Amino acid sequence: MKKKKRLSYAMVGGATGSFIGPIHRMAIRMDDLADLVAGCFSRNAGTNAASAAKFRVAPERAYADWQSLIAAERGRIDFLVIATTNETHYAIAKAALQAGIDVFCEKPLSLTLKEANDLGRIAKRRGCVLGIPFTYTGYPMVKLARDLVRRGELGTIDKVVMEYVQGSFRKPDRRTSWKTDPKIAGPSCVVSDIGVHAFTMIEYVTGLEVERLLADLSSFANTTGLDDDASILMRLSGGAKASLVTSKVATGEENGVRLRVYGDKASLYWNQEAPNYLSVKYPMKPEMIYKRKAPYVGDLSPRSVAASRFPAGHHEGFVEALGNIYDEFVAAVVSRRARDYPGVREGIRSMRFVEAALKSNRVGNRWTRI
Amino acid sequence: MKKKKRLSYAMVGGATGSFIGPIHRMAIRMDDLADLVAGCFSRNAGTNAASAAKFRVAPERAYADWQSLIAAERGRIDFLVIATTNETHYAIAKAALQAGIDVFCEKPLSLTLKEANDLGRIAKRRGCVLGIPFTYTGYPMVKLARDLVRRGELGTIDKVVMEYVQGSFRKPDRRTSWKTDPKIAGPSCVVSDIGVHAFTMIEYVTGLEVERLLADLSSFANTTGLDDDASILMRLSGGAKASLVTSKVATGEENGVRLRVYGDKASLYWNQEAPNYLSVKYPMKPEMIYKRKAPYVGDLSPRSVAASRFPAGHHEGFVEALGNIYDEFVAAVVSRRARDYPGVREGIRSMRFVEAALKSNRVGNRWTRI
Amino acid sequence: MKKKKRLSYAMVGGATGSFIGPIHRMAIRMDDLADLVAGCFSRNAGTNAASAAKFRVAPERAYADWQSLIAAERGRIDFLVIATTNETHYAIAKAALQAGIDVFCEKPLSLTLKEANDLGRIAKRRGCVLGIPFTYTGYPMVKLARDLVRRGELGTIDKVVMEYVQGSFRKPDRRTSWKTDPKIAGPSCVVSDIGVHAFTMIEYVTGLEVERLLADLSSFANTTGLDDDASILMRLSGGAKASLVTSKVATGEENGVRLRVYGDKASLYWNQEAPNYLSVKYPMKPEMIYKRKAPYVGDLSPRSVAASRFPAGHHEGFVEALGNIYDEFVAAVVSRRARDYPGVREGIRSMRFVEAALKSNRVGNRWTRI
Amino acid sequence: MKKKKRLSYAMVGGATGSFIGPIHRMAIRMDDLADLVAGCFSRNAGTNAASAAKFRVAPERAYADWQSLIAAERGRIDFLVIATTNETHYAIAKAALQAGIDVFCEKPLSLTLKEANDLGRIAKRRGCVLGIPFTYTGYPMVKLARDLVRRGELGTIDKVVMEYVQGSFRKPDRRTSWKTDPKIAGPSCVVSDIGVHAFTMIEYVTGLEVERLLADLSSFANTTGLDDDASILMRLSGGAKASLVTSKVATGEENGVRLRVYGDKASLYWNQEAPNYLSVKYPMKPEMIYKRKAPYVGDLSPRSVAASRFPAGHHEGFVEALGNIYDEFVAAVVSRRARDYPGVREGIRSMRFVEAALKSNRVGNRWTRI
Repeated sequence: MKKKKRLSYAMVGGATGSFIGPIHRMAIRMDDLADLVAGCFSRNAGTNAASAAKFRVAPERAYADWQSLIAAERGRIDFLVIATTNETHYAIAKAALQAGIDVFCEKPLSLTLKEANDLGRIAKRRGCVLGIPFTYTGYPMVKLARDLVRRGELGTIDKVVMEYVQGSFRKPDRRTSWKTDPKIAGPSCVVSDIGVHAFTMIEYVTGLEVERLLADLSSFANTTGLDDDASILMRLSGGAKASLVTSKVATGEENGVRLRVYGDKASLYWNQEAPNYLSVKYPMKPEMIYKRKAPYVGDLSPRSVAASRFPAGHHEGFVEALGNIYDEFVAAVVSRRARDYPGVREGIRSMRFVEAALKSNRVGNRWTRI
Repeated sequence: MKKKKRLSYAMVGGATGSFIGPIHRMAIRMDDLADLVAGCFSRNAGTNAASAAKFRVAPERAYADWQSLIAAERGRIDFLVIATTNETHYAIAKAALQAGIDVFCEKPLSLTLKEANDLGRIAKRRGCVLGIPFTYTGYPMVKLARDLVRRGELGTIDKVVMEYVQGSFRKPDRRTSWKTDPKIAGPSCVVSDIGVHAFTMIEYVTGLEVERLLADLSSFANTTGLDDDASILMRLSGGAKASLVTSKVATGEENGVRLRVYGDKASLYWNQEAPNYLSVKYPMKPEMIYKRKAPYVGDLSPRSVAASRFPAGHHEGFVEALGNIYDEFVAAVVSRRARDYPGVREGIRSMRFVEAALKSNRVGNRWTRI
Repeated sequence: MKKKKRLSYAMVGGATGSFIGPIHRMAIRMDDLADLVAGCFSRNAGTNAASAAKFRVAPERAYADWQSLIAAERGRIDFLVIATTNETHYAIAKAALQAGIDVFCEKPLSLTLKEANDLGRIAKRRGCVLGIPFTYTGYPMVKLARDLVRRGELGTIDKVVMEYVQGSFRKPDRRTSWKTDPKIAGPSCVVSDIGVHAFTMIEYVTGLEVERLLADLSSFANTTGLDDDASILMRLSGGAKASLVTSKVATGEENGVRLRVYGDKASLYWNQEAPNYLSVKYPMKPEMIYKRKAPYVGDLSPRSVAASRFPAGHHEGFVEALGNIYDEFVAAVVSRRARDYPGVREGIRSMRFVEAALKSNRVGNRWTRI
Repeated sequence: MKKKKRLSYAMVGGATGSFIGPIHRMAIRMDDLADLVAGCFSRNAGTNAASAAKFRVAPERAYADWQSLIAAERGRIDFLVIATTNETHYAIAKAALQAGIDVFCEKPLSLTLKEANDLGRIAKRRGCVLGIPFTYTGYPMVKLARDLVRRGELGTIDKVVMEYVQGSFRKPDRRTSWKTDPKIAGPSCVVSDIGVHAFTMIEYVTGLEVERLLADLSSFANTTGLDDDASILMRLSGGAKASLVTSKVATGEENGVRLRVYGDKASLYWNQEAPNYLSVKYPMKPEMIYKRKAPYVGDLSPRSVAASRFPAGHHEGFVEALGNIYDEFVAAVVSRRARDYPGVREGIRSMRFVEAALKSNRVGNRWTRI
């Protein structure tokens, strides 16, 4: 057994009390991938210090701003996790990549496609690894879905029907209200916050590229005018079509990520709220329910089984999915080779998607190239 | 107990071996609404005679053509059921209505909006009752859904997400292939065959009118060029939006009629493949699963309970739903008063929907008034 | 097409307002099996007359008591439906059978095993057909389950786990309160009212016989002391074991009939509240969901498809299941040959089950031969 | 923010390749509770060393036997995790407790009740904390279930119906075959391996004690004669009854832990294979589906929300449940006060359950006091 080098990482954002910070830390700890050794967890000095203490980061490695962190930690950490609000992603990621630091950055990668392209160029030039938590592509049964499509089990794909719906904007108290502030969230809310997950899943599972879209955005509950609901039609490479609904005003929905892919031989259905199952339907055979890490899954998709920790029936969920993405990201950090995680390509394509959706909506719901 | 007048009816189409004919006869028998006394079940004389014998219709009342039937039976029957292929609906219904016969006609009511309008005018002029089996509006839990919306339980409706998907065109053997022949089916396949059900349900449940739509039609499996898949965006009165997917190429789907309605206070979900349940979700309360004919349903929707036959837990399905529509239709036939069944208005509106969808698709997926 | 003889039947019990009467009449009408021509619907003369009028039975064929009915109708009707309370089943069925009338009698067939045996002997001696509505054996997917077992798909059956649970005794208003009156219901409530359904299903699906049982009965909500809850262990022929829970105090349950059968090669699961599906699980293959009347069902179980009316996805329920039992019963009435419906054997075995359960409970929950 | 003392632990068993070892380590890491600093992971020296290297345990703290570990680590570690096969639990736990080390020991706590009692006495005498991973009591929705019962939402509990079924013994390859070897597993297989989970859940959720049981054990697939299937009836304090089925030969089942509790006011249902939901049914209200960490859950059960990490809709599973048990166990280790984790009491009661089940079965399925 070869002794593995112990990795370390720093985090920007993600102070105590944040939503997404703890998930990143747990996902990294779950498979014992790296130690958190530095951070700029909050712009508030007290919160920053308290977070560092709680996370057992040495006080001197808790920085007042991310610029200082990058300056001081370059060469000392293996990667940087960016868990801040949207408007800061670009600048932090850019500085880190320019400093040669591998980066794992929350989505959306940037506020504009131009910025995303810029980050892609810098990452390439500096030879840096850039990962993005399109977490739903990390689920074992999503990987099985992708592999079933690749093996031709579905035949030619004709139609994709997808929903990513939440009801969070219907709750009296929503702590993510910065998401509706254009200065922080950028020019889009629902499309760039969760629509990008759906978009990335569609391309990941089908192996096809979205070429054009037609978007109808709404702002039903949100007073700042950013989109909180969208219906988007898409044309995929090879002639397939997709229909996507994504919403923050889907009252009572928690996190409804539901994907149906219809091929001419079979179809599949995955529902993030029952993530350990994948249903495959045929014209002339019973519906089949595949279960995570069951023996027959291994024959079809070693990648799905490799992304599973516990036996079928012992359910895995959200943190394991993010853990799977970190597993692959860290493997890339160590090996400097391509792995199965969302990165530069997905970051850029998702921003093309966001900009195309905004443009299509602006011009009266017309087909727009992405 | 007042002795009820015994009703009688005739049928055009629906010979032995047909799909839809037996369902109509069963639905009528279920509640013992009327006796089948005459018919022109098939253009094939042998089949017609054999069907009459099987249905215990006197040989002399089995007519060689529908013209003879109408001529001979006017004044002798209480209503006429039209269960033929699409292209004949208009002529038969027109002749029957002109003869003063109440008509129950399969959908689509006609091949064109013009014809539908024409039938509406004649029915009005002659004071005839015209019913159409938009069967999904007959389900008790759909009636509960409508009543919950009316009571304001959902608040203002913002978004409707609907699917009506079948995989029938993926089966090697499909006996409904006339549905892809424009001479018989008319200018549309999936939209006029099942899309109209979805459209009618949306208007029935929400109480809103679809004002404009944007349709993207496809023909994935069908060699005649008629649509077998559609994604349709809609704008409803009051500002709500809807997204509909309807398909005949949704491989492995049986009869996936699934409706979600999102209001600003609550949302509802109904799935025709689990039709005895209605789910209502709230931002700050547990999801509630209403069950057909449970005591609390009666308080909310007497109409839903009245449309139920058996206690909760003893499931009802498709034939009961059609039976409910016949119950109301026959009540209208007897009382000459408005009742809760789809009729002229739904027939005309559904044809406006079909024509608007075809037009929108033709002009490059543009918003089109319906 | 051979002209079928038109059948007729009479009914005892089942007046307007009764629970079970209308279901029988609908089930018979659904497939147009026979005409209701005579009855003694109620001991109350007014209710009896009103019911006859409503059911379009001639006034002179609405009898004041069942004795007169049998005396007057013998030779005029094809069969008699007994839809009265338990304590009258034996006497009515006995008289009818002795008069040579075929009988369809509600369960339980009698109050005692002795009576059931007596009816069996008379039916045999008179060559009469005797049917009993163990309705759950009429569901198409239960027939598929039986056929899968017969084909060896499950291998050797080791274990059966069954529930038949209702919460009816927890409702403030329960119109079936005669079921707790020993004078009417007999010596058992839950076991003889619904436990017999479960017992019959187990034997029907597995093809095995229950040989011994150990019963633990309770009376949680019922003030008369009759059982309203039971846990029953069983030993089946061939070494299999079964565990059954049946209850009237399962608060909030509607009609929870759930059967799991575990063989050494596969297992199956059927849930009456989603009756159009049958799940089959394997050690090394995905779970398979069979759907009513799907093409692959026909290859496995022609009987299941023959018992289906509408295409997969167009759901059938309780009344179709009872209709299926009537179809077979009436076929036996016409053909005088054995058919697939519960009859004398099931009636007697279910009474052996009831008596064994009562005895086992009485002697301190000991194994008792049935 | 008070700086927390950093805890450390050692593990016996759980080498690389083991099933349960990694789960413990992940569960501890997930909330960053303690560092693994020592271990005797395998009796095989190479495996032991390799495991230590992989887990980043210093070579000198990887011990050849558990006796050496305890001798060397007493006073240096905060607790010891025992993840070995059953027959060793008692000796290791005893030695550790006698050395004053807090212990977290896999179930079953011991092979006999006598041993369990012994461990209880020692733990008490030495003031040690003893935890046992009855993991299913760690699920947030199981905690909500317990709290709903406590608040009286269900009224008086009358009946409990529980299943814990697996099909593992039907698979051609089962790596847990030591579980059928009496020398290693002890005198019971299914009852002591998974039946104890079910038993503990019943007492945890209902707050009642099982007083007597009647067990019918089988050995369907297992050649060593140990039980692989059981049906167990129980009498609980206060008059409630329970029916339990537990099996290793439930072909095709993965990990079917399903609990129904029926009170006179409401009932609840939890299914470990959809663990983020809890269904509550009422006689006169719609079924309610509670979702993990939804706002309304907090009002009813702060404990359930405290045991949740991610928002509703972002699913948690098995490792989080075990993490919750470790959270409470470690809190007890630190505070020396009672917390909400299964410990001495549950360990002893579960062994009473096992012994009573074996005895009841031996004497012919008679009621036996536990």
